[in-house]
Amino acid sequence: MSQYAKPPIQPFEISLDIPTGALSPAGPTLIRKLSDLEGCFENKEAFQSEVAQTNPIVYQVISSLVPETARELPQSITTIYPGSCGDELYMTKGHQHPDPQGEIYYGLEGTGGIILFDGKEKKWLDISPGKIGYIPPGWAHRSINTGSTPYKFLAVYPGSAGHDYGWVLAKGMGFRAFDSNGKLVLKDFVI
Amino acid sequence: MSQYAKPPIQPFEISLDIPTGALSPAGPTLIRKLSDLEGCFENKEAFQSEVAQTNPIVYQVISSLVPETARELPQSITTIYPGSCGDELYMTKGHQHPDPQGEIYYGLEGTGGIILFDGKEKKWLDISPGKIGYIPPGWAHRSINTGSTPYKFLAVYPGSAGHDYGWVLAKGMGFRAFDSNGKLVLKDFVI
Repeated sequence: MSQYAKPPIQPFEISLDIPTGALSPAGPTLIRKLSDLEGCFENKEAFQSEVAQTNPIVYQVISSLVPETARELPQSITTIYPGSCGDELYMTKGHQHPDPQGEIYYGLEGTGGIILFDGKEKKWLDISPGKIGYIPPGWAHRSINTGSTPYKFLAVYPGSAGHDYGWVLAKGMGFRAFDSNGKLVLKDFVI
Repeated sequence: MSQYAKPPIQPFEISLDIPTGALSPAGPTLIRKLSDLEGCFENKEAFQSEVAQTNPIVYQVISSLVPETARELPQSITTIYPGSCGDELYMTKGHQHPDPQGEIYYGLEGTGGIILFDGKEKKWLDISPGKIGYIPPGWAHRSINTGSTPYKFLAVYPGSAGHDYGWVLAKGMGFRAFDSNGKLVLKDFVI
């Protein structure tokens, strides 16, 4: 399995292979199956049933070699597959940065969006190729595939920001994103 | 003149208009004419003569609204026009980050490269559309247009990194990049 490079990091070139959603040279790859998103979808019955049947891959994240350590600026490409669970669109687990720092998501292929939540205010950003979503410090964020093809984006984030997945499970995400006959419907996240 | 947004920054969408090299909504725009690059080119005679004659625009930088403050992750698009001064290819002033933090340059259009220098080691990275150059903490960096069309790249950098232009004037950049009948030639930077 690939690992991050060991500091000190040297200058190097990183290629984006958008068809495969890979950064090259690649660091760690993360595969999230539906079962890895326990507690994320509203419809628990649909979730359990789909996990028991096909347990599909919901998304993958391929990181570059740049490590998640202080002062570095790592990157990754996330590919969220199209689909839904109980009509709730496929999404990432979502996280908050324990050390509040800004992040960008840059659309590469397909269409999607970001749900952002600071514990009080909630926000939706539409993302498509050539568009950046700015995630300010202090806003938890979750990505959604709103289309019928894989949705891919490049993330760039400070290496010391960290990932707190428990924050989202405890506090929610403000919105949930559903498919309604091919249209995106945002509903309040009830916790 | 456009300014950065005032913190606290809200989540927002940023569009990249690659033909014009603009981020939208746009923050400050920086235009560097040849005369703004005093001390950068090796051939002082050619520099003075071209400044006196046409003093062309060498590059522009259009920033997003995200401010250059701690914890934010600002971005900008740099457009370096094609050309040379005494055969030395058009380039940015180059800078070091006073607070050493990583940065990425993502190629959008045209072809170019980055000269990197940490005070001892020097490095060249080729950049073209779809390719990231990783600038580790502690490496001064200068961008070069190696082609015959405008070279454009997206920069993403921690808001507290800062810009020290004097470092480069005092210590050099390791390499100088010249055009030799359409071919890139790197020479040692003599200081």
